Amino acid sequence: MTKQMSATELAAYLEEIFPQVHGDFVVEDLSADEMVMRLRVQERHLRPGGTVSGPSMFGLADCAAYAMILSRIGQQALAVTTNSSIDFMRKPAAGADILASCKLLKLGRVLAVCDILMHSEGSENAVARATMTYSIPPAR
Amino acid sequence: MTKQMSATELAAYLEEIFPQVHGDFVVEDLSADEMVMRLRVQERHLRPGGTVSGPSMFGLADCAAYAMILSRIGQQALAVTTNSSIDFMRKPAAGADILASCKLLKLGRVLAVCDILMHSEGSENAVARATMTYSIPPAR
Amino acid sequence: MTKQMSATELAAYLEEIFPQVHGDFVVEDLSADEMVMRLRVQERHLRPGGTVSGPSMFGLADCAAYAMILSRIGQQALAVTTNSSIDFMRKPAAGADILASCKLLKLGRVLAVCDILMHSEGSENAVARATMTYSIPPAR
Amino acid sequence: MTKQMSATELAAYLEEIFPQVHGDFVVEDLSADEMVMRLRVQERHLRPGGTVSGPSMFGLADCAAYAMILSRIGQQALAVTTNSSIDFMRKPAAGADILASCKLLKLGRVLAVCDILMHSEGSENAVARATMTYSIPPAR
Repeated sequence: MTKQMSATELAAYLEEIFPQVHGDFVVEDLSADEMVMRLRVQERHLRPGGTVSGPSMFGLADCAAYAMILSRIGQQALAVTTNSSIDFMRKPAAGADILASCKLLKLGRVLAVCDILMHSEGSENAVARATMTYSIPPAR
Repeated sequence: MTKQMSATELAAYLEEIFPQVHGDFVVEDLSADEMVMRLRVQERHLRPGGTVSGPSMFGLADCAAYAMILSRIGQQALAVTTNSSIDFMRKPAAGADILASCKLLKLGRVLAVCDILMHSEGSENAVARATMTYSIPPAR
Repeated sequence: MTKQMSATELAAYLEEIFPQVHGDFVVEDLSADEMVMRLRVQERHLRPGGTVSGPSMFGLADCAAYAMILSRIGQQALAVTTNSSIDFMRKPAAGADILASCKLLKLGRVLAVCDILMHSEGSENAVARATMTYSIPPAR
Repeated sequence: MTKQMSATELAAYLEEIFPQVHGDFVVEDLSADEMVMRLRVQERHLRPGGTVSGPSMFGLADCAAYAMILSRIGQQALAVTTNSSIDFMRKPAAGADILASCKLLKLGRVLAVCDILMHSEGSENAVARATMTYSIPPAR
């Protein structure tokens, strides 16, 4: 399996199609089967008590899977999430970014499946784990 | 099963503990086993193409489940999401709010499970369905 | 949406393609959007303590969704499960069959999504809830 | 984290409390954080076409998670599955056993979460991936 986009090309493309995520999500590392994405935690990502909210972690997992898939199929902005399951296992550390390690488990003709494990930076234990399934539009 | 809070009390409590959601989520209706919550769709909830994003729908389902559970157990801000699965089934209508119908399937000693069906206002078909499991802190 | 098969035709077709389920699963009721399937509980469906096992309830939900989808698309034995989430909420009653109410939430070109709520016969509370997503093979 | 039971003790205990699984599930390997369990594929595990059925893979994932958790908390037969999500990604190879690699992601006071990746023996690609959440009964 070969990459269609480098980490730099991918970051530029994400910013072009998702201008509102600018500054939130950063591609840290990208290989053929795995990528690492950072959530730069800001005030709007927190829930009462000061920890990162569930929807913010869901958004990180969703963006990581989308970017991982695009890095392999090229610029097809129309891939859409069809299913997700997510387990929240520990409270994220206060004042730390979240790092998501995303693995591509399947890249089929119509469906792609990614597994995402999330940690607070500087901590070993997973705060959350997600699976994201994307539907891939037919090639034109 | 009896309600601990009315729709008005619930709305006031949510605004107190989640000031950042002010204006996004509105309790439309509340009975002992079901509630309806509205997502007032704004620019920041959209993805490219102008439809409501996945993370916004996840956030709506999460907030609806949280509010449904609090309406039954009273003010316990510390209930936390432990698991969620969500299916995105249709593209939300452009320019329409999303309405979430939340049913309480189980309210146990340590876990509560809610089922949430989401529609675009004015449309019959479901855009998404979610299950949310919350862990309930031990009573003090 | 119209039915392609009656409850009787569906039962006959299931028995033809799944001879090993003979006697386990019974179509109780079938309309355009919902079906009810019974698990005739037998010794091999039980776990220690005498209640119905998780894999047996998963099998019931899977078979109910498969039958619901076939009743609408006709005899296409090749539809396959791609994803499922299931919540086990209460202990099934001892010595009672399980009834699954299956709703078709989406029937798309490539994916179908069903929601299944399961009860012990004679009891009102749900023992489990499942979502099943099936991939539909391209029409020949 | 230390093990409470060796692979041999675990196998003996499983056989004692789950006599009906005798011969189906085999503990292949066990360390503090991971175990490998084999499904000895037999006629009753197959679906039409000769591949391993979804419910059989669900049963394998469920048993692997149960055994992994028991190996850590000791003999507490009453741990029960509360939630599972499973993705079926590829057709299992015909005539091959299925091997499940189970990782313990969280072992909390009331909930334990396992991640399970399944392969056909002799093949590298995952056929399915599951998450299993177990509720742990209060210690007596």
